[in-house]
Amino acid sequence: MPYGEDKCTKRLQTKFAELFETEVTVFPVTTGTAANALALSVMVPPFGAVYCHAAAHINVDECGAPELYTGGAKLLTLPGSNGKVYAQDLTNAIASSGKGVVHHVQPAAISITQTTEAGTVYSQSEVRQIAEVAHTHHLNLHMDGARFANAVASLGCSPADITWRSGVDVLCFGATKNGAMAAEAVIFFNQDLAQTFSYRRKRSGHLLSKMRFLSAQLETYVTNDLWLKNAAHANKMAEKLATELTKLPGVKFCYPVEANEIFIQLPEAVIAGLMADGFQFYRWEGEHSTTVRLVTAFDTKYESVDALIKAAQFYSDCFDCKKT
Amino acid sequence: MPYGEDKCTKRLQTKFAELFETEVTVFPVTTGTAANALALSVMVPPFGAVYCHAAAHINVDECGAPELYTGGAKLLTLPGSNGKVYAQDLTNAIASSGKGVVHHVQPAAISITQTTEAGTVYSQSEVRQIAEVAHTHHLNLHMDGARFANAVASLGCSPADITWRSGVDVLCFGATKNGAMAAEAVIFFNQDLAQTFSYRRKRSGHLLSKMRFLSAQLETYVTNDLWLKNAAHANKMAEKLATELTKLPGVKFCYPVEANEIFIQLPEAVIAGLMADGFQFYRWEGEHSTTVRLVTAFDTKYESVDALIKAAQFYSDCFDCKKT
Amino acid sequence: MPYGEDKCTKRLQTKFAELFETEVTVFPVTTGTAANALALSVMVPPFGAVYCHAAAHINVDECGAPELYTGGAKLLTLPGSNGKVYAQDLTNAIASSGKGVVHHVQPAAISITQTTEAGTVYSQSEVRQIAEVAHTHHLNLHMDGARFANAVASLGCSPADITWRSGVDVLCFGATKNGAMAAEAVIFFNQDLAQTFSYRRKRSGHLLSKMRFLSAQLETYVTNDLWLKNAAHANKMAEKLATELTKLPGVKFCYPVEANEIFIQLPEAVIAGLMADGFQFYRWEGEHSTTVRLVTAFDTKYESVDALIKAAQFYSDCFDCKKT
Amino acid sequence: MPYGEDKCTKRLQTKFAELFETEVTVFPVTTGTAANALALSVMVPPFGAVYCHAAAHINVDECGAPELYTGGAKLLTLPGSNGKVYAQDLTNAIASSGKGVVHHVQPAAISITQTTEAGTVYSQSEVRQIAEVAHTHHLNLHMDGARFANAVASLGCSPADITWRSGVDVLCFGATKNGAMAAEAVIFFNQDLAQTFSYRRKRSGHLLSKMRFLSAQLETYVTNDLWLKNAAHANKMAEKLATELTKLPGVKFCYPVEANEIFIQLPEAVIAGLMADGFQFYRWEGEHSTTVRLVTAFDTKYESVDALIKAAQFYSDCFDCKKT
Repeated sequence: MPYGEDKCTKRLQTKFAELFETEVTVFPVTTGTAANALALSVMVPPFGAVYCHAAAHINVDECGAPELYTGGAKLLTLPGSNGKVYAQDLTNAIASSGKGVVHHVQPAAISITQTTEAGTVYSQSEVRQIAEVAHTHHLNLHMDGARFANAVASLGCSPADITWRSGVDVLCFGATKNGAMAAEAVIFFNQDLAQTFSYRRKRSGHLLSKMRFLSAQLETYVTNDLWLKNAAHANKMAEKLATELTKLPGVKFCYPVEANEIFIQLPEAVIAGLMADGFQFYRWEGEHSTTVRLVTAFDTKYESVDALIKAAQFYSDCFDCKKT
Repeated sequence: MPYGEDKCTKRLQTKFAELFETEVTVFPVTTGTAANALALSVMVPPFGAVYCHAAAHINVDECGAPELYTGGAKLLTLPGSNGKVYAQDLTNAIASSGKGVVHHVQPAAISITQTTEAGTVYSQSEVRQIAEVAHTHHLNLHMDGARFANAVASLGCSPADITWRSGVDVLCFGATKNGAMAAEAVIFFNQDLAQTFSYRRKRSGHLLSKMRFLSAQLETYVTNDLWLKNAAHANKMAEKLATELTKLPGVKFCYPVEANEIFIQLPEAVIAGLMADGFQFYRWEGEHSTTVRLVTAFDTKYESVDALIKAAQFYSDCFDCKKT
Repeated sequence: MPYGEDKCTKRLQTKFAELFETEVTVFPVTTGTAANALALSVMVPPFGAVYCHAAAHINVDECGAPELYTGGAKLLTLPGSNGKVYAQDLTNAIASSGKGVVHHVQPAAISITQTTEAGTVYSQSEVRQIAEVAHTHHLNLHMDGARFANAVASLGCSPADITWRSGVDVLCFGATKNGAMAAEAVIFFNQDLAQTFSYRRKRSGHLLSKMRFLSAQLETYVTNDLWLKNAAHANKMAEKLATELTKLPGVKFCYPVEANEIFIQLPEAVIAGLMADGFQFYRWEGEHSTTVRLVTAFDTKYESVDALIKAAQFYSDCFDCKKT
Repeated sequence: MPYGEDKCTKRLQTKFAELFETEVTVFPVTTGTAANALALSVMVPPFGAVYCHAAAHINVDECGAPELYTGGAKLLTLPGSNGKVYAQDLTNAIASSGKGVVHHVQPAAISITQTTEAGTVYSQSEVRQIAEVAHTHHLNLHMDGARFANAVASLGCSPADITWRSGVDVLCFGATKNGAMAAEAVIFFNQDLAQTFSYRRKRSGHLLSKMRFLSAQLETYVTNDLWLKNAAHANKMAEKLATELTKLPGVKFCYPVEANEIFIQLPEAVIAGLMADGFQFYRWEGEHSTTVRLVTAFDTKYESVDALIKAAQFYSDCFDCKKT
């Protein structure tokens, strides 16, 4: 049966309800950008505003997808250390937003990313405080969970605790970065918001006729804790990297390492050496930046991590790097 | 390398250039709706009009995707026997469209479907005549090729002949209905139109990070004529069905059978019998309709076709059906 | 006080509530296109459909404004003699629309024009039947009333009777064509639909800072029945024209003349003569058409009507026109 | 003749060409929000970005109109003292924007406001530097001139000098704030950008049928330097206010006073007193703010300014205000 009427897709509803210990409505899509933008499209009106961190993926890395799918809603950015939005900043922003005044876009949602774009993880308490502000002012709470698995593995809590029990209305549950080919699930804890989603997914071309190939990825992913095992491995590899790299002279971590991403300043000699050795990573702030991002994954091998560490130590020693 | 920078995706450019015997730009996406709507989004302005057959998939089966992606352009429908648009009707429509008059949406593209929604196939001459009208009036010509393979197999021409050599500017080349999991390619013969496509694909969430899994489907599909073999098989199965069903009393074909779809009126007793036996097909005009659509596919077995024919004969005999 | 906080604008709410004998919310805007498109934007979702007559102004004369303001909703046209939509056609259209099926745009509103684009007038009974079908299927009923005054003057009923008492949810109440400089009022009988209108008006640039100049036009217009007097005069002038023109040989009325527009086939010699004499009107179906539209207005003078009639008689006699 | 085919509207083209000493295309609309958003809609693609000051009217006071009209383009804000964008900040922003990278919205325009939202005025040199950066990177330069007259009066230059001669592509030339009822003109110096504007104006409902009433305001406005006289008067009134208020203890100007707006911190006692006396102005940063905005206009009377000054002095003396 096509277009999601197959058995595998139907089973997903139950699978995710069990995983999240509550009723949910689940919509598989193929990309995180589609998941986020479609989710936001049912959470805000075209004249609405979505608060998010200035570094949020929806704000800087989706080429305006939220604007397209919401019919022109506006992303309003908040500052926040370690890539996080803080409840107090949200409160202040809403207070000065001109709510009810026709000249201004109207606050309608807040989007947070878990794991954040800085590789850090919101605690339950942090999410709960944001949710409280949001719901007090009738904003919906969206969680971009492209790296949700890494956050849950890091927190060691249940998926329910860090989502609906903390006030999240809609979660974009990512699988692609953690092992799937191309699979994300938009999960509605707030059922009212789910009602028009299927039409919006179809009219954006994100309803697959052979949905079973997409759903099968998600089903496997959440069976036997595969998703958490994958994430825990990636996190462990990042921790190992961080533990060893911190011993080198001249390095500086930009943010706490809490999941599978490391943002770190390295001596130029070390960066150049690693690159010459074929390690692949981005200079994070332009081509001359000595801040780099190191990402570990579900399939990162111990040996690769060891090799990177050894290479970094070698180049560090070699060039007698000084602390910057 | 993510986001289409992989080798397989890069190879697609060459593969399709060879297949179509000309320079092309190829963008893989996962669904036909996405392919069509994104293609149209670079072919018409928001205040533009797209002519198409009243029965066109873009008009009735995409939940408004073209309207979303074009920023509100309008589909203007044309009549036409056997599911086809005819050049003369297009000429007339443009003549009365109010071109240059600010009150009216401005004709900017014509979209035709090959194989049509009626299962018929445009000849080269028919496409060429449409293209001539289109280009004379500065309209772009879009071909929805969800079943393009079946048309080429039916025509026995080269892919080039029925597309750019006949004046097609952009082709949505379908693979999903003919064997792929979820893969379509938007193929630009008119390179000027391709320039902003990559941004539009990204902002609609249709750029896959692990593009290689999508490109691999397309590469296999066009290698060693697999796509044409699949389509030829499906067409042959449809021909077989048509040849036999026409012998039954009381049947009437709605359109010529030229590819892999049959639209046929059957006696109710035959329909009911086939359904009771587990054959799956749609009543085409509502739940009491005795017009049904029979579709054969790349994987339709000879035995299945035989079984259907035998069952139809059995129910026809049994109930002593009269010619309607 | 700017932006509609002035006294005149506030008085409009009461004025219109009295005029329509019920609670209303009134939003002044400057054009009929803005009124219609903004009204529809709160009546349908982006994946929705608006039924309307094929000749509806929203469909053919607004350059896609409804599509822009609704975020891409689709206008689905209905046939209908004398420029009218009929309840039965609406019923049939909804029945075959695929309501609830994700592939199709979802019926959400029906728009009728009163006075119609053919110069005819819906009776209360006709509107009521349409409303009944609409509301049974949860569609909103929009009335484009660019020539609403002429319809009310023609019907001799109260404005309430032909709108909310007959089931209209939102009326675009025109004044520009009947004497104002640039003033239309969007009138909500269904208050739920009004809630986000003010934001949508602002973000489309249709909220005037010096709103009082707009509201003053509307206030004057509905004071002391000026609007009805203007319309009655225009209607009377049209009636006079029709009564006399019908006596000429070779003329044929396209539709009943019920308000201030006449669609009439005239002998070419008469058309050419009238044009040569400086009378201004459109050939209605292209430059060689002998169907013309004659429109009378609030300020059409008796003498002008007489002059046209005399001229028509002169050219008719002169050229010895035969009945076509 | 309707829809701008009247003589008055046609004369505007010549009038403005003379005023700006170059070929221009002029489109009258009724509001500044419509002017800005429509202008931007032809300057950026839907996946584009518009740079502007964080305090820009288009960013904070138009309820998302630019997002609606551009089909979802993004406004990216720049800091800048005295309400101004500076060329160096624009350079830096473009450099880190990810131009050519598909994940990011693409820089396509820069919008500056003249007179700025802080009541300051860009010099020719400042505009020229911004234009140079913009054009080097293929961005269009938009000037929001809601208070353009006040800027020209303040600079004492020709309108040409501060616009196209300094590199402005499109100017929104305001009249409403400086004497008109509701009239703005979108003026294209870059003719290529003007080509689709008329369709976009129509489909947004901003094409008036009786355009002459709108054009007449603009024609009068630019005849015999009325616009400059009005602005010069308003500026003078502001200067007078500033000169006297600066003498009071405890006052602080937020920005230089260069046109007809004063942003000033006043002792609470003075603010309360002035309000009690019936003077109307906004507290600028919320209801407890002691920063107020004083705006003078074309019709501000000398006596009113004197009265305000005297009252301010009285309340200042009375309460023995200290310097803050």
